[in-house]
Amino acid sequence: MLGLTTRFSFLALCVLQIDEEVAKLLELKAQLGGDDGKHQFVLKTAKETLTGKYGEDSKLIYDLKDQGGELLSLRYDLTVPFARYLAMNKITNIKRYHIAKVYRRDNPAMTRGRYREFYQCDFDIAGQYDAMIPDAECLKIVHEILSELELGDFCIKVNDRRILDGMFAVCGVPIDKFRTICSTVDKLDKMAWADVKKEMVNEKGLSEEVADQIGEYVSMQGGMDLAERLLQDQKLSQSKQACAGLSDIKLLFSYLQLLQVTDKVVFDLSLARGLDYYTGVIYEAVLTQTGVGLGSTEAQQEAHAEDSVSVGSVAGGGRYDGLVGMFDPKGRKVPCVGVSIGIERIFSIMEQKAEASAEKVRTTEVQVMVVSAQKNLLQERLKLVSDLWNGGVKAEMMYKKNPKLLSQLQHCEEAGIPLVAILGEQELKDGVVKLRVVSTREEFDICRADLLAEIRRRTSEA
Amino acid sequence: MLGLTTRFSFLALCVLQIDEEVAKLLELKAQLGGDDGKHQFVLKTAKETLTGKYGEDSKLIYDLKDQGGELLSLRYDLTVPFARYLAMNKITNIKRYHIAKVYRRDNPAMTRGRYREFYQCDFDIAGQYDAMIPDAECLKIVHEILSELELGDFCIKVNDRRILDGMFAVCGVPIDKFRTICSTVDKLDKMAWADVKKEMVNEKGLSEEVADQIGEYVSMQGGMDLAERLLQDQKLSQSKQACAGLSDIKLLFSYLQLLQVTDKVVFDLSLARGLDYYTGVIYEAVLTQTGVGLGSTEAQQEAHAEDSVSVGSVAGGGRYDGLVGMFDPKGRKVPCVGVSIGIERIFSIMEQKAEASAEKVRTTEVQVMVVSAQKNLLQERLKLVSDLWNGGVKAEMMYKKNPKLLSQLQHCEEAGIPLVAILGEQELKDGVVKLRVVSTREEFDICRADLLAEIRRRTSEA
Repeated sequence: MLGLTTRFSFLALCVLQIDEEVAKLLELKAQLGGDDGKHQFVLKTAKETLTGKYGEDSKLIYDLKDQGGELLSLRYDLTVPFARYLAMNKITNIKRYHIAKVYRRDNPAMTRGRYREFYQCDFDIAGQYDAMIPDAECLKIVHEILSELELGDFCIKVNDRRILDGMFAVCGVPIDKFRTICSTVDKLDKMAWADVKKEMVNEKGLSEEVADQIGEYVSMQGGMDLAERLLQDQKLSQSKQACAGLSDIKLLFSYLQLLQVTDKVVFDLSLARGLDYYTGVIYEAVLTQTGVGLGSTEAQQEAHAEDSVSVGSVAGGGRYDGLVGMFDPKGRKVPCVGVSIGIERIFSIMEQKAEASAEKVRTTEVQVMVVSAQKNLLQERLKLVSDLWNGGVKAEMMYKKNPKLLSQLQHCEEAGIPLVAILGEQELKDGVVKLRVVSTREEFDICRADLLAEIRRRTSEA
Repeated sequence: MLGLTTRFSFLALCVLQIDEEVAKLLELKAQLGGDDGKHQFVLKTAKETLTGKYGEDSKLIYDLKDQGGELLSLRYDLTVPFARYLAMNKITNIKRYHIAKVYRRDNPAMTRGRYREFYQCDFDIAGQYDAMIPDAECLKIVHEILSELELGDFCIKVNDRRILDGMFAVCGVPIDKFRTICSTVDKLDKMAWADVKKEMVNEKGLSEEVADQIGEYVSMQGGMDLAERLLQDQKLSQSKQACAGLSDIKLLFSYLQLLQVTDKVVFDLSLARGLDYYTGVIYEAVLTQTGVGLGSTEAQQEAHAEDSVSVGSVAGGGRYDGLVGMFDPKGRKVPCVGVSIGIERIFSIMEQKAEASAEKVRTTEVQVMVVSAQKNLLQERLKLVSDLWNGGVKAEMMYKKNPKLLSQLQHCEEAGIPLVAILGEQELKDGVVKLRVVSTREEFDICRADLLAEIRRRTSEA
């Protein structure tokens, strides 16, 4: 019986759920006219929320039609719904995480953990704070998660949208092409520079010269020293925007040093991120270890073998100071910074690691199996399993009237259940239960009254 | 920083996630032709899965159109997807829980916890087992959850589809009207018998006499004794189906006695449940306590005041032995029994209870707030908070360069954070941190090297 586990999940869900519950109630209240009885601006949750937020990624949004004729889409990420929630409930500061499903009309690649419907795990900090302090915390969290999960070596790339925009400006990109060129730069993690340049020139209409100037900048990688050097760069330093971004990168690195995570963080001017809503710092974490196959062929691995192979992004995020204001009727801004963890990709990797290690992963939390040594003991098993459940022990029994002792014991070995409580006619006569330790096959007669305490002692040891 | 909490959720999610991951991979494998290279039956996940499963409730399914032209719907419950998963992956026995969102085109009633998009929490046991043993476990789980959450008094109604069908047969309902009359009986929890009868006669075309005979049966409530009495009932005992159902109800009650839950279980012949897929035992848990307002007016409460007022169903389920076979190309059946917990309704009630009790509910798990007593100590705060995070302590600090000491301490009082680690110039000089206990306002100088241990000691005490 999974009673305990169920309750555990209730608690986990509780944390996620309260915000949504509150949002729904406040939304209803707003629709009913609010406290002061005045007519209020009502933004419908489903309608048009997703439009104009994702730039060229918009084509991946799942559109759907409600039977009532309203235009509906499935959520594309957790960031836009979070921003809408803040605006509609007039929240000016909050820190929260959210794990939920999002939807993309992309080409699925199941062995690599890429699906059309998948979970994201977001952490965001909203509020008017001093520069780069919450941003540094987001990077610390990514560092902590990827370190603790032991997924192999990783690298967190950092850049700033203002540096990119400043760079586009000083290189001569027309201002109305900033976003679309930004999307093209974003492809540098999957395409060679030559192809990216081709797209800039042939599809997006930049001159070769402008593209080449961009190419020089986006090849730069470094740390705080690179930010300092670029602040002196004759061309780039002409852009106020770029200088603001570079100063913040410097400040960010100083905080990251105090948080002890600079070993994995790289200032990388080729990092662009596709989404339109970022306004400042952006970042992306990639696993860099070779060996974790992720379904790629040997030939593919070899093709990248000159360097450590990037197996793709597992986390990303940045600052989006304008998004909440887009949902607020008066345009009031709430600065935000956040990160999204690609947990399906991380699960794929962890599953492959578990498979490769041949280490057996237990799929249940059952502590004790209640078994019978002879026939006609179903009632006694039910009584005992009920006592164990009532005592908070994770116990189970076979759903058969007269299962064979051997098949009951085999099930424990296969499922990795550590303890067996054996009931036989002799044990019932003596008022005891035979407790078997599966790993050692030792057996002890335990007085029925002492059984709960003995099981607790043995399961807390493990 | 929520690093620890995030990892906690990863684990919780892990349990939910693995099944889905495996299902996706196996599905892909099936589409690619499987192991033996032969052509295999491929059932598309999205298409037609939901059709013909829900009876008259089908009108509540959210239909949607994919941009590629495939017909799509949002899932209506977790039972049909579970059955599809078993069939597609040829799983013949499993026990699992699943917490996820489902969608209904119903009229939302937000203050009562009824939404169009809401979480369900399902627990199911699939497999060929001896009668009523897994069914009894499902009822034990409902009993445990509702007892432990202290939602007030409740009652679990039990019936069997075979008893209903047998009853319809002996009362003279034409066989092709069994399901639609079953849906009408299901309304007895919200409508008076007179109105239910009217629907049977005027809308569904039964004669008054047939309806009255049904009316007599559906007014019956009892325990094992009622099942015994009905097995002797001249009319009902002519139906083999009804007798099979009544015998199983007897057996179920004998198991429920051993599981110590008969205090809350009632055999109620008016329980019908609307969904088509049930084939045997069905059950539904309702809260019966007055007082928990759930947004109802005093007048409404009075209208029901002669008895304990049912505030609606919070859990329901039953046996569905035919559903998996509907998804299997060869029609192979896997008997299943399960229960669905209405966690949004349960949350509504818990929130109202929390509000009514005026007891403060903590919304964060932060154990220590790192604060500064003077200006220019941001760097020192960052270093300390990083050390605490690395040590596994749930700590936070204000995202300001120079926050006021008083506002930092006030935040701790408001948020219920139990400990404050205060850094000042004197403390830094002495190599100590001043640890403040928020509840008592006591302060102690703790040597920097001992701080982690001291915090752990104090937080494990609480």
